[in-house]
Amino acid sequence: MPELRKDPILGRWVIISVERGKRPTDFVSPAQRKKGGFCPFCPGNEYTTPAETLAFRPEGMKPNAGGWTLRAMPNKFPALQIAGDLLRQGEGLYDRMNGIGAHEVIIETPDHSLSLATIEPKAMEDVLWAYYMRLADLKKDTRLKYVLIFKNEGDAAGATLEHTHTQLIAMPIVPRTVRDELKGARDHYDIRERCIFCDIIRQELSDGRRAVSENENYLAIAPFAPRSPFETWILPKTHASAFGPIRQSFSSLAGIFQRVLKQLDKTLDVPPYNFVIHTSPFNDENNEYYHWHIEIMPKLTKIAGFEWGSGFYINPIPPEDAAKFMREAGI
Amino acid sequence: MPELRKDPILGRWVIISVERGKRPTDFVSPAQRKKGGFCPFCPGNEYTTPAETLAFRPEGMKPNAGGWTLRAMPNKFPALQIAGDLLRQGEGLYDRMNGIGAHEVIIETPDHSLSLATIEPKAMEDVLWAYYMRLADLKKDTRLKYVLIFKNEGDAAGATLEHTHTQLIAMPIVPRTVRDELKGARDHYDIRERCIFCDIIRQELSDGRRAVSENENYLAIAPFAPRSPFETWILPKTHASAFGPIRQSFSSLAGIFQRVLKQLDKTLDVPPYNFVIHTSPFNDENNEYYHWHIEIMPKLTKIAGFEWGSGFYINPIPPEDAAKFMREAGI
Repeated sequence: MPELRKDPILGRWVIISVERGKRPTDFVSPAQRKKGGFCPFCPGNEYTTPAETLAFRPEGMKPNAGGWTLRAMPNKFPALQIAGDLLRQGEGLYDRMNGIGAHEVIIETPDHSLSLATIEPKAMEDVLWAYYMRLADLKKDTRLKYVLIFKNEGDAAGATLEHTHTQLIAMPIVPRTVRDELKGARDHYDIRERCIFCDIIRQELSDGRRAVSENENYLAIAPFAPRSPFETWILPKTHASAFGPIRQSFSSLAGIFQRVLKQLDKTLDVPPYNFVIHTSPFNDENNEYYHWHIEIMPKLTKIAGFEWGSGFYINPIPPEDAAKFMREAGI
Repeated sequence: MPELRKDPILGRWVIISVERGKRPTDFVSPAQRKKGGFCPFCPGNEYTTPAETLAFRPEGMKPNAGGWTLRAMPNKFPALQIAGDLLRQGEGLYDRMNGIGAHEVIIETPDHSLSLATIEPKAMEDVLWAYYMRLADLKKDTRLKYVLIFKNEGDAAGATLEHTHTQLIAMPIVPRTVRDELKGARDHYDIRERCIFCDIIRQELSDGRRAVSENENYLAIAPFAPRSPFETWILPKTHASAFGPIRQSFSSLAGIFQRVLKQLDKTLDVPPYNFVIHTSPFNDENNEYYHWHIEIMPKLTKIAGFEWGSGFYINPIPPEDAAKFMREAGI
């Protein structure tokens, strides 16, 4: 019997079609092998990209040239642009405004052959610091309300360049999905005076069936109502409304993040995937009701008419099974 | 300068990245040519599918055998099942219920080589009657609240069989996207005592830039804030809250529906696409605030991390341009 499950934060239902119960190998698409060729993100080709907004390289070296271990820069084909006025306008029933914002790329390693799962642990910490520093810088622009940090890994997940990179889009409005999460979390808080994510963490720690990985500060779970097979969330165990380090360190987060990515790579043979970081909006960064987290979605199923017409998702593997397969990956 | 546009019904924002302004040919993927091979939906292979729930064939002929012009039947691998109890359950914070519902397939023509755009006009009317009859039948099951009728055409749009077919999923809950549309429409009605879709139709008829096609009873438009290039909606011009014929006839709807599909095929070289029919829920079929319609989305861009993490869409072609290209297709 298939099962309908409701996400407690968003009220979003998913269909877990357990009768189709499958092994991870049923989802494996051709592994994400690199093809090579000219790469604008490789060292030596800095001249082909816009100027850096941030870079890590030994002191005294020139910007926008080689020697870096991490680089951030505006996207050459930005979805939103930093220059201009918002210029909100109506047109009969409709509303529009100029596409003010920022669209940046963070190249996490100069090494074309590596991925976020395989860079050195120290490099992964640097990546998280880079996210944090770009967020802090963009926050100064008062036109911007939110920054979404996300990654498309692999062609099927929407990556247009194979050299590993993260993207960041800063927006003049809080995006709908985040607004819906904030509303769900606030509704829960209004009734119970507890953070719903903290409640979820407590329940998942005591239940254990959906736990994927855990360390001192973070928990990774397969959520109760996942949109796609092997969807995984990483959350700080102690309440934290905005993305940031714990005691001035990202080492614990870097550790669990890379472990989860390695578990996915092992279980699903280096799948294409997306992740997003969901954090509180700039104007409400410290609050009691919202809990920042990372959502990772391997790209294994196609979004078709049913999903986009209904907002429902059909997931052929229960999260309890997915979490078990990932725990058994032996990473 | 890119532009942010808001859908007036859902409050969903999209980014129209006009600077990337493109021609339809920039989106053309390999045309949806049929590969052939054994097809369970072809005449003579009726024994491979579940028993019919509806079929059109000359009187006196046997069911579940050849001679039909249209067949409907349960999906062999259903996402939801008709037998059983709903059995709503809690589990700590979480809610679940049995996956009660129906999942059917409607084979619109026995001819493997045709598509919804190329079947005879009379056959298209029959397809719409079949949708209507299946809806009416499923409505009798009081456990069911909603039926979503949708089509995945082409591999990239999620079709697993190439013989043209429509799917239908009947659910014990009103799906989230429809619920959000109902809420947006009701909020508008509460303030203005007018249907928001009727307001949109009036504005689009007088504006004209986003009009794709029109006949006596229906209007096809590129919506103001489309999620993807060449997204097209078909709406009845006179208020109607639930999908159904006008004066006992589907000829006018069949006409505009096929015309729009032909315009898409001509402009985008037979693109993969999805469509959904959005209608009022069973328990509120006759109302003043909601307006049934068809949403058609050619599958030309990939949904990546940004889209699913934000609920925002990036669309590289303004609807005014898309509508112009479709009008100029000369269909």
